[in-house]
Amino acid sequence: MVHAMNEQMEQCIEACLNCYRTCLREGMNHCLEAGGKHVEPMHFRLMMNCAEMCRTSADFMLSSSNLHARICAACAEVCDACARSCEEVGEMEECVQACRACAESCRSMAGGASNASFQGSMRGQDSDAPVKSPM
Amino acid sequence: MVHAMNEQMEQCIEACLNCYRTCLREGMNHCLEAGGKHVEPMHFRLMMNCAEMCRTSADFMLSSSNLHARICAACAEVCDACARSCEEVGEMEECVQACRACAESCRSMAGGASNASFQGSMRGQDSDAPVKSPM
Amino acid sequence: MVHAMNEQMEQCIEACLNCYRTCLREGMNHCLEAGGKHVEPMHFRLMMNCAEMCRTSADFMLSSSNLHARICAACAEVCDACARSCEEVGEMEECVQACRACAESCRSMAGGASNASFQGSMRGQDSDAPVKSPM
Amino acid sequence: MVHAMNEQMEQCIEACLNCYRTCLREGMNHCLEAGGKHVEPMHFRLMMNCAEMCRTSADFMLSSSNLHARICAACAEVCDACARSCEEVGEMEECVQACRACAESCRSMAGGASNASFQGSMRGQDSDAPVKSPM
Repeated sequence: MVHAMNEQMEQCIEACLNCYRTCLREGMNHCLEAGGKHVEPMHFRLMMNCAEMCRTSADFMLSSSNLHARICAACAEVCDACARSCEEVGEMEECVQACRACAESCRSMAGGASNASFQGSMRGQDSDAPVKSPM
Repeated sequence: MVHAMNEQMEQCIEACLNCYRTCLREGMNHCLEAGGKHVEPMHFRLMMNCAEMCRTSADFMLSSSNLHARICAACAEVCDACARSCEEVGEMEECVQACRACAESCRSMAGGASNASFQGSMRGQDSDAPVKSPM
Repeated sequence: MVHAMNEQMEQCIEACLNCYRTCLREGMNHCLEAGGKHVEPMHFRLMMNCAEMCRTSADFMLSSSNLHARICAACAEVCDACARSCEEVGEMEECVQACRACAESCRSMAGGASNASFQGSMRGQDSDAPVKSPM
Repeated sequence: MVHAMNEQMEQCIEACLNCYRTCLREGMNHCLEAGGKHVEPMHFRLMMNCAEMCRTSADFMLSSSNLHARICAACAEVCDACARSCEEVGEMEECVQACRACAESCRSMAGGASNASFQGSMRGQDSDAPVKSPM
């Protein structure tokens, strides 16, 4: 049970860091060089905001924060908004996929972790067990 | 109206950056040197998580993100948890005050910005007006 | 002596956080909205890189890192480059001033801290004394 | 030539993000739970400083900053110091390896990029060519 939880968290950390690097890289390279609608303020801000929030979400999970579910839920919303904006702008497929994958993973982490946290508060500090390093 | 909104946001950015620096400084100096309950995993993680989330919250507001209300709401919860943990540990008054002030400011920003955002979507993009630099 | 050192560090932390918020805010608001040369890739990247490096430099000083001199030296170079780029683009006076002030403060911190670090290694861990929180 | 450069940069980004997550995870889990010398201020600060600097170094490369060589050079020094500290503390093999690998990659990036930058300034902006996304 705890093991399954940790695997799910590992995948979510991976999805967050992948979304962080994809949004930052695409924003600072493809978007800035393409110009036009790619640097339209609302779109470009979302790209940078998404990179920042994914980095923070990974940070919370890497440090075994017992508040990570709350942060993952907020991160999922930012990723969803960024994916929609990238679809509207077009030619941002890589970014759309990274955002969608991260949003889905964060949402399932938010739900699963809430349950784990609830069970943890019933049984002690189980839900705060440190994440094992698989690397 | 827009001006009042911006003043509130300026104050929230200030509260977030103050909480970020206070939590990071106290954690990496006072807590590490005091040891004992000051470096108890759950407490110390909260100090670092709070610093990270406040930094991210400031980042969203500084970049005029239209998702800042969502992030501020999550930040307020992290600050509340950190303040409670600091009160339990004791001798962390400066940190308790910075967390309480940031939580209050973020909560009012979350509420106010939601309203502004709602009104903005009724009237155009007013709620996404860039934050003026007063510095 | 140690007190003088700490005051200098306090000022440098302040200069770094001011430069971080000025570059981020101006980049994500003024530059994105003005468009044209304000979002030219090399210039815009420098704005974001400068914000990131100033944040990291403040982070090292806030955590009393004994490697902060090295980081401040690198930060000064990034700030200098950003100031020059902002001068070329024009209408970025606030950013130019924040970058210049941060570069100067970081450079003097880099020099002063190297000396303090040298003296510290002669006398024990004085140079690693925690930064006092004046806030 | 440019392709070889980009592959080297990809590897360095990977090494930086791996070192960031290893230092953060080990510090916030293994070190805090083991206590004793694992939370000795100078060691623990280095773990957090190293995570922060690796994250910043990755950020500079992901955004194709033409100052990344300077940042990578500073990052290599922080990683070296963290590796030495982890070796002294003991039972930190994973962290030692991630820091050593990142230091080596950053040092070669610092050298290689300096050369590329020199050639770039001779020939135009070749050295500032955006990093291609391989993901």
